[in-house]
Amino acid sequence: MKVGFIGLGRMGQAMARRILDGGHELAIYNRTPDKMRALGDSGARIVGSVAEAACYGEAVFTMLADDAALEHVAWQQGLLESLPKGCIHICAGTHGVGIIGKLQAAHTQAGQILIASPMLGRPEVVASGQAGVVVAGPPDAVARCQPLFEAVSRRVFEAGSEPAAATAIKIANNFVLGCAIEAMGEGFSLVRKYGVPPQVFYDVMTDGLFASPAYKVYGKIIVEESYAKVGQMATLGLKDANLALVAGEAVGVPLPSGNVWRDRLVGAIAHGDGGCDWAVMAREQARASGLTS
Amino acid sequence: MKVGFIGLGRMGQAMARRILDGGHELAIYNRTPDKMRALGDSGARIVGSVAEAACYGEAVFTMLADDAALEHVAWQQGLLESLPKGCIHICAGTHGVGIIGKLQAAHTQAGQILIASPMLGRPEVVASGQAGVVVAGPPDAVARCQPLFEAVSRRVFEAGSEPAAATAIKIANNFVLGCAIEAMGEGFSLVRKYGVPPQVFYDVMTDGLFASPAYKVYGKIIVEESYAKVGQMATLGLKDANLALVAGEAVGVPLPSGNVWRDRLVGAIAHGDGGCDWAVMAREQARASGLTS
Amino acid sequence: MKVGFIGLGRMGQAMARRILDGGHELAIYNRTPDKMRALGDSGARIVGSVAEAACYGEAVFTMLADDAALEHVAWQQGLLESLPKGCIHICAGTHGVGIIGKLQAAHTQAGQILIASPMLGRPEVVASGQAGVVVAGPPDAVARCQPLFEAVSRRVFEAGSEPAAATAIKIANNFVLGCAIEAMGEGFSLVRKYGVPPQVFYDVMTDGLFASPAYKVYGKIIVEESYAKVGQMATLGLKDANLALVAGEAVGVPLPSGNVWRDRLVGAIAHGDGGCDWAVMAREQARASGLTS
Amino acid sequence: MKVGFIGLGRMGQAMARRILDGGHELAIYNRTPDKMRALGDSGARIVGSVAEAACYGEAVFTMLADDAALEHVAWQQGLLESLPKGCIHICAGTHGVGIIGKLQAAHTQAGQILIASPMLGRPEVVASGQAGVVVAGPPDAVARCQPLFEAVSRRVFEAGSEPAAATAIKIANNFVLGCAIEAMGEGFSLVRKYGVPPQVFYDVMTDGLFASPAYKVYGKIIVEESYAKVGQMATLGLKDANLALVAGEAVGVPLPSGNVWRDRLVGAIAHGDGGCDWAVMAREQARASGLTS
Repeated sequence: MKVGFIGLGRMGQAMARRILDGGHELAIYNRTPDKMRALGDSGARIVGSVAEAACYGEAVFTMLADDAALEHVAWQQGLLESLPKGCIHICAGTHGVGIIGKLQAAHTQAGQILIASPMLGRPEVVASGQAGVVVAGPPDAVARCQPLFEAVSRRVFEAGSEPAAATAIKIANNFVLGCAIEAMGEGFSLVRKYGVPPQVFYDVMTDGLFASPAYKVYGKIIVEESYAKVGQMATLGLKDANLALVAGEAVGVPLPSGNVWRDRLVGAIAHGDGGCDWAVMAREQARASGLTS
Repeated sequence: MKVGFIGLGRMGQAMARRILDGGHELAIYNRTPDKMRALGDSGARIVGSVAEAACYGEAVFTMLADDAALEHVAWQQGLLESLPKGCIHICAGTHGVGIIGKLQAAHTQAGQILIASPMLGRPEVVASGQAGVVVAGPPDAVARCQPLFEAVSRRVFEAGSEPAAATAIKIANNFVLGCAIEAMGEGFSLVRKYGVPPQVFYDVMTDGLFASPAYKVYGKIIVEESYAKVGQMATLGLKDANLALVAGEAVGVPLPSGNVWRDRLVGAIAHGDGGCDWAVMAREQARASGLTS
Repeated sequence: MKVGFIGLGRMGQAMARRILDGGHELAIYNRTPDKMRALGDSGARIVGSVAEAACYGEAVFTMLADDAALEHVAWQQGLLESLPKGCIHICAGTHGVGIIGKLQAAHTQAGQILIASPMLGRPEVVASGQAGVVVAGPPDAVARCQPLFEAVSRRVFEAGSEPAAATAIKIANNFVLGCAIEAMGEGFSLVRKYGVPPQVFYDVMTDGLFASPAYKVYGKIIVEESYAKVGQMATLGLKDANLALVAGEAVGVPLPSGNVWRDRLVGAIAHGDGGCDWAVMAREQARASGLTS
Repeated sequence: MKVGFIGLGRMGQAMARRILDGGHELAIYNRTPDKMRALGDSGARIVGSVAEAACYGEAVFTMLADDAALEHVAWQQGLLESLPKGCIHICAGTHGVGIIGKLQAAHTQAGQILIASPMLGRPEVVASGQAGVVVAGPPDAVARCQPLFEAVSRRVFEAGSEPAAATAIKIANNFVLGCAIEAMGEGFSLVRKYGVPPQVFYDVMTDGLFASPAYKVYGKIIVEESYAKVGQMATLGLKDANLALVAGEAVGVPLPSGNVWRDRLVGAIAHGDGGCDWAVMAREQARASGLTS
């Protein structure tokens, strides 16, 4: 397929590389041009504007950092204006349900199609072809883009015809993760106060019920207190918590575990840990428990 | 070793069977005698009182349903009185930190030894030898009983010399599980309101970050709404939540995720779901979200 | 003084009337003109644009429903452009700390002055001269406007030189009220389950510790279940809850009681009570407790 | 009336004094005799055992510190055994719903009558005759004891025929108070971060909606940070919070605001403030917000 790609951060580069390697023709655009060089050397066409990327093929990806960037690209920089009728905007970032709804309305009015396709997995996982992708949008359009989704992932999860459904899944998955980290943090504080070496509790958890990456990766960070080595920053974790709470409010779903998650991050940031990995929730919990360190 | 065993419910039977099969000599006691028959037929010595079981060998297991039963066996039925000096009480149930502390003091005063050894895994897992066991108590005593722990488990987690440490680990592990189910329930309500088929969200979660029994087993129950098939009853889940909150209070650890877990169970019970599997938290969350399931 | 006034809803009219009656010269502007008639008949000058109101005197009030309206008036409709240098914008609505900060920066850059002056009390209380007003802004400007603040209130609370301080006080006062209503609702559910007639609990509360309007007014609504007679709508209560949580997040203050308040409103709205008085939190609490009211 | 009185702490002394001054004949018993001297000098008959106090007249008051003391007096020290058939136990302390239910069953079985009559107000308020009292029990019995209730209070709140109803009201009233203090604490942290002098926020709150003792008394303590001058200790506040949560659990009422209240006290105690006045919740909230006070 011929396809545009807007937003070549680490995740965007990994996705674009796989699309290119999958044999598709790619026009790429990024605000800062140097991030496009390697892909250009590999055959991607470097273009100078959002508009050019948008009208290059039958679909255009966006992989942007947040809602503000997406809003800017769509309304100010001309994606909505330039995408030809019948063409598809594949929105791959993690966004709020609000902007996805607004974007869908605008695309529909312009005779265009929106697919939301948030990625599951970090950039290096995407690069290795081991990530998952959740897709939702009009079935015809999703079917047409199937080769693209297969190029960027190991497994495609189809979530129906409403783009917001894919968004909700991604938000809910992050939500379950954030709450798991918070609960682990509480558990670690509890056992520490009873003299348990954190590693022992880690071994118990991850040997059985919780033998999965969420608990192994974040449990290890908590045991080692290696919060300075940042995977996802606490401030971005807070952004995710807010995406979840706002998504819940919009449809009448109270998320009390989400409140706890959010509050712990607010507290961590208040104590100067905003730049740490978001697992620093466990340190904030320790602080709230009168544990120093 | 020669060892007594008090409490032959489903878990007790599975443990006693493995100890017997491991070549140890066993004297067993249960309030209702019929549960001892099969073990008796296999060579266990059936005794008529707690006291006889307590003074049979160099150690005596208790595997009792709750703190009240343990208190009754230890103080009223004569375990404390009958256990010879230097002998070991291996307390294998899931108990509160309060009674474990009280029991430890009483045993110490009587020149006896307490090891807490809560099991990780359901009776059928214990029966198959695939369970874990957490042990904490005086190192010498733990070393002497090592063959017993190996008989009942695939892996022994040593948690130090304080019995309450093993108790805390077991409570914290249940805590992390209860909070995980609650968070999952919230996530499922959220995506359902966006039109996502629950199975799709299940697939997303368990494919990656949460590919572990906790999420696979309980996520499946939630997807299938099979709450009537009870693994752990909601009312017992509430007991576990209270064990955690009390353990936290005793050492100054607020457990806000635990509050959410507990409240959801209180609400489920208020709505008549107390006899369902504790994953019914997800149905109570759906109810709180205006979803009629 | 000569002063403009933008936003003549019920609160705005009550304030403008008092300013006029206090002997000041007033130019008024409202989007829908009919709300200006009575004030015009009493001598206020009716103008046709935000800009005319903004440059009429040495200060201009805004009394607008929400942040969006304020943003529109300030940036789109020309308040910032038209207010002369050295003149004062007295912002009297209940707004978020974010927009107040942004507005302050814009006014400062334009050589203008911002005072935040949220009102305490409903329109009829303002009309009777019995309301309070919280004011914060540069001391000179506050001193100059003192006659205006005295005209609209019985008591002026000075909160310092930063406009956001007045905003925070108003938000925090609403917060304490929202949490009080929520806690009352929980208390009423609790006693009802023990067979207590709600009126008796109301009498106990309001006879002693809680003999104040917050508990008398809202307690009465709860006892009578008169949620259909709307003072403040549940959906607007939710807006206030969010203002508080956002204000807390901005400065690193977790507000766990605010989460409870917010969740109860989200749940009430999910159950179809969004159009009721926000004391309907108590009915949502009853629902969560399995009480059919 | 002829009446016994067991438990002469500060509250018990104030009540017994008023009963004596009301012209009733009083037999008093206290574990430590010196607290009975002054009342004895005023004409009360000092007795040497619970049993003597229990069988002295047609009713016997207990005013005991907690459930353990009540259990001890009722079952171990012979109140249940000695109270004549048809006589009344007026239980005036603040107890849990569990023990009140158990006590009611025991009294009923013994042909005796239980009235729960928790006091509203501190000892000095009781002494001045300005306290309230909530009473619940069989209507005949309540009517017979009316002169006693009028002697100890300014106002009698009748809560029906079930003793637990009076208990629930007292617990719920404390609950609403605890939650109010917690919410105030959160509000003070919020405004402080915006540079507001605490006194200003205090003035705003207590001038209008919250012009009642709960907010005036505790708000003042928070403004002055006079936590060392202890009215009710934080550890006792935690006991009250637990009474509420247990009462809620027993009848299926989740109390999320109560969780917040309880957690804040757990945290305060973890940070060494357990011996302070329970308004120290506000300091713990400040700590959680990164404010060093």
